[in-house]
Amino acid sequence: MVKEVISSKDNTRIKNYRKLHTAKGRKKSDQFLIEGVHLVEEAVNYNQPVDTIIIEDGFQHDLNIDKFKVLYVSHDVMKTLSTLDTPPGIAAVVNRQKPGKVDYNRVLLLEGIQDPGNLGTLIRTADAFGFKTVLITPKSADPYNPKVLRSAQGSHFHLNILQREAAEAVAGFKGIKIGTSLNDAVYIDDFNKPEGDIMLVLGNEGQGLSEETLNLMDINAKINMPGSSESLNVAIAGAIMMHHFKS
Amino acid sequence: MVKEVISSKDNTRIKNYRKLHTAKGRKKSDQFLIEGVHLVEEAVNYNQPVDTIIIEDGFQHDLNIDKFKVLYVSHDVMKTLSTLDTPPGIAAVVNRQKPGKVDYNRVLLLEGIQDPGNLGTLIRTADAFGFKTVLITPKSADPYNPKVLRSAQGSHFHLNILQREAAEAVAGFKGIKIGTSLNDAVYIDDFNKPEGDIMLVLGNEGQGLSEETLNLMDINAKINMPGSSESLNVAIAGAIMMHHFKS
Repeated sequence: MVKEVISSKDNTRIKNYRKLHTAKGRKKSDQFLIEGVHLVEEAVNYNQPVDTIIIEDGFQHDLNIDKFKVLYVSHDVMKTLSTLDTPPGIAAVVNRQKPGKVDYNRVLLLEGIQDPGNLGTLIRTADAFGFKTVLITPKSADPYNPKVLRSAQGSHFHLNILQREAAEAVAGFKGIKIGTSLNDAVYIDDFNKPEGDIMLVLGNEGQGLSEETLNLMDINAKINMPGSSESLNVAIAGAIMMHHFKS
Repeated sequence: MVKEVISSKDNTRIKNYRKLHTAKGRKKSDQFLIEGVHLVEEAVNYNQPVDTIIIEDGFQHDLNIDKFKVLYVSHDVMKTLSTLDTPPGIAAVVNRQKPGKVDYNRVLLLEGIQDPGNLGTLIRTADAFGFKTVLITPKSADPYNPKVLRSAQGSHFHLNILQREAAEAVAGFKGIKIGTSLNDAVYIDDFNKPEGDIMLVLGNEGQGLSEETLNLMDINAKINMPGSSESLNVAIAGAIMMHHFKS
């Protein structure tokens, strides 16, 4: 059998895959695009519903992908599919997984996180510290944006990531809800990890948590900073908090 | 007096300032370029040797800059000076400060950190946790790269940031040297903050610390991760460590 290599950027499938670069396109097809050996390997290992693996003609790899549909493309076509300056030679189109059963032991709620790098890093860090459920408000960056996927390094496939309005997320949770505001807050060094389920809630990079969401918290936590910087990046603050309240 | 506004991109001063976008240009003039109200304000407030403040004609601000040289430029000129898609209307050329007396109480040594965002975030976080001396090996990203400056949000002006080879940095330090390697490492949850001076040492994003540098450490620390992610971003790991070993 002769291997077919798509070399036209205007091929219908290629055009459809390029639509996955935008939130609108991802929403319409309920799919997303991942790039690079590490992410494709994680998707395969964690039994994600991979639709198609896309490989640049001549690209060498040692992934076991026999049971998947593979599409070979030319370098020029791969360049149009990739969101990176240097396309990594392999990509995949993945169907959105149906949400699994929510694990309430450790929940991370993110309200209006805008920067894709911050969102991806928070997802990766949640995965490290046993926050198996990540709830993201609709006004945040799209968790399936290619930059978020890249920063999270495959952690999307280990976690339950759901879109929820903050009020709805809080209403469905029975454990202790810990906000992050500098006002009326307890320093984490003086705040032992409570027993039972914990929801940690982080807000937007500039504004922090909304007043409405703050009013729903059981307690606010803040980080002791003996130095002279006024604030921490949200992914950094979130990581220190998740480490402190880890499972 | 009529205010002069430079509207030619080929103006000699403008051309020289643009050279500050590269490490080579910064090294040659021993200056760097900062952008945006927050960074300019921090430079002014922390008595940095500001050479010139550059303002886009018509840009409104309430900074007290009477004692500085100001250069007004057109929008098109500002666009060539800025490294951002949306130029923020104000920038400044700052002379490199002569290194101050080294504070050995908390030292952060960074070996080969490549990503400017990671380097800037580590500098900002060092500032929060009282790591007043940041030593950076020559093979790392340039700490005066515009993206590093932006991620650090002005913390450059609060700290002593020096270029040092790792072996030289370690040789000049008398306190406890804490490496970050997963081998032969103690979990930080079981590792109380030692008395006296502390040097925390972080390595490259992909390779971690070099064998030679690891051999110079007193002890290695690692972070307890109950989840299923294999690793943390270096700026995240560094932040959790700096928080644990803070001054």
